[in-house]
Amino acid sequence: MRPQRKPQARQENTADIPFYRKLIGKGAQPAALKTAVVMPVDERSLKGAVEAVHKDMIMPVLIGPEDEIRKTAEEHSLDIGQLEIEDCANEQEASQRAVELAAQGRVEAIMKGHLPTHILLKAVVQESQLRTGRNMSHVFALAGKDYPKPLFISDAALNIDPTLEEKRNITQNAIDLFRCLGFGTPKVALLSATEHVTSDIPDTIEAAAICKMADRGAITGGIVEGPLAFDNAISKKAAEAKGIKSKVAGEADILIVPDLQSGNMLYKQMRYLAGYEAAGIVMGARIPVILTSRAATTPTRLASCALALMVAEQGAQERREPVEIEKRL
Amino acid sequence: MRPQRKPQARQENTADIPFYRKLIGKGAQPAALKTAVVMPVDERSLKGAVEAVHKDMIMPVLIGPEDEIRKTAEEHSLDIGQLEIEDCANEQEASQRAVELAAQGRVEAIMKGHLPTHILLKAVVQESQLRTGRNMSHVFALAGKDYPKPLFISDAALNIDPTLEEKRNITQNAIDLFRCLGFGTPKVALLSATEHVTSDIPDTIEAAAICKMADRGAITGGIVEGPLAFDNAISKKAAEAKGIKSKVAGEADILIVPDLQSGNMLYKQMRYLAGYEAAGIVMGARIPVILTSRAATTPTRLASCALALMVAEQGAQERREPVEIEKRL
Repeated sequence: MRPQRKPQARQENTADIPFYRKLIGKGAQPAALKTAVVMPVDERSLKGAVEAVHKDMIMPVLIGPEDEIRKTAEEHSLDIGQLEIEDCANEQEASQRAVELAAQGRVEAIMKGHLPTHILLKAVVQESQLRTGRNMSHVFALAGKDYPKPLFISDAALNIDPTLEEKRNITQNAIDLFRCLGFGTPKVALLSATEHVTSDIPDTIEAAAICKMADRGAITGGIVEGPLAFDNAISKKAAEAKGIKSKVAGEADILIVPDLQSGNMLYKQMRYLAGYEAAGIVMGARIPVILTSRAATTPTRLASCALALMVAEQGAQERREPVEIEKRL
Repeated sequence: MRPQRKPQARQENTADIPFYRKLIGKGAQPAALKTAVVMPVDERSLKGAVEAVHKDMIMPVLIGPEDEIRKTAEEHSLDIGQLEIEDCANEQEASQRAVELAAQGRVEAIMKGHLPTHILLKAVVQESQLRTGRNMSHVFALAGKDYPKPLFISDAALNIDPTLEEKRNITQNAIDLFRCLGFGTPKVALLSATEHVTSDIPDTIEAAAICKMADRGAITGGIVEGPLAFDNAISKKAAEAKGIKSKVAGEADILIVPDLQSGNMLYKQMRYLAGYEAAGIVMGARIPVILTSRAATTPTRLASCALALMVAEQGAQERREPVEIEKRL
């Protein structure tokens, strides 16, 4: 038996990823983003917040058990002397408080610290003042060396099995993020297992439907194409071999996955085997929600803050006016 | 109360419809089509067959109760002296015999006389030698004065509630017919209640999916667009008002209806209120099946024969090699 190939270890030092450097640079604005940081009670999340302060990216309100936050700071020599703290007993309370501050306009973004995603998002979803006409969705901005540009993936974290209309919103949210970053018009690939439209795989039908929605103006700002298999989406050669003529095939900027399971596997494969780093943000609420995983490195957290900052600064108008899907029967 | 507007009576004399004149002219080939005429036991169906013989379009085998056929001929002064008759006791037997002759290659087309459509088609469907890789579907070729060109409608007669793959075949069958007639590349509108893609109306999703199937080469020979509402499909002005940019919108040659109910209402409205005549043919079997309604006029029957003749002559190759929908997973 041949020995199993060990998965390549994830690179811890990601400060050197050019895309993130660029992002972080872009995000260093004079007006730091007032941000509720929920449960910064471990080194990674508190350090991410503190580093973002140093970069003038955010002005945080640290929300959580004050003694735990202070203890974490002390243990890891993080200076939080100047930072505002709101004492909350637990994850639920802290999430609730962050959402309240956002609803009152006292913070412009929410950043997840050391707590399960669903607890924070439950609070966000339940606050009607943070809702838009769209459902919320998560976007990863991945950066690595095997593809000539950053790759955005959505939704690999939030919507488990989205409906057609939710997929439309997911697609629009990702396009909006891309545009907020000043990258122009993205090429959006709607992924499925195959580029053939067949009722054997309902996702392929929905992908085709989303393309037509884009043709009809129900999705704007991006060039949308699908269904595409992963190879067709990122390899021009593979697309040509399959005879696919499309402006998107082979050079996608955004990959829309059919469901959370496939998206989760895809981004984890890219992150843990291919050495990609994944900054993340939730779009579709009235304010950006910075949602890096608990294991995210500082540069990734900073890149995520940068995403939020640029969305808040440049994209506020678009996000606050959700595209209406007209139904003229 | 205002008096109800009376529906305009259907015009009986349709010999003057230029499209049908043209079709019938095209169909008058030196080699008449050997055709099984099933149950020509009323004036309309027997006269249609006899007229088609006079035009050198078909060479019929009249199949049905011989005494009834002869009695009909006598009563209506139709000369059937030279025509072959196969004596069959009833509709089932006559249908079965027609299909046998077709399977043996002794006839090149089947023409429906005075019997219910489903009895004839049941026999056709059950004969494996007449099957192709596609399902059968019916195409109407309508001609009238309110639209600058003939309009093909499918499927308003055969498939009640087709699946995505059946709709694909329906679309391909209609395109094939159009091309067999030498009309070039048709503009195909996939009709629905609205041009917006929405899961509220699953037909709109399937229409979008069929467009993408065409992009991927699973449908060939036509320009396919949908979903389109009826107005968008046939009126450029309506399409422009809705902001639809498409080569098909406003100038469709072929209308693919989402299901039999809507198609039936549509073609009947065109036929009985708008004065259109509807020649008809079934595509997707190894031979064309001429399937005019029992009330069809002689010119319509002749036009239908012409369709069959041109399909048999010019389109045999395409029909016999069904496009394979490849599934490369």
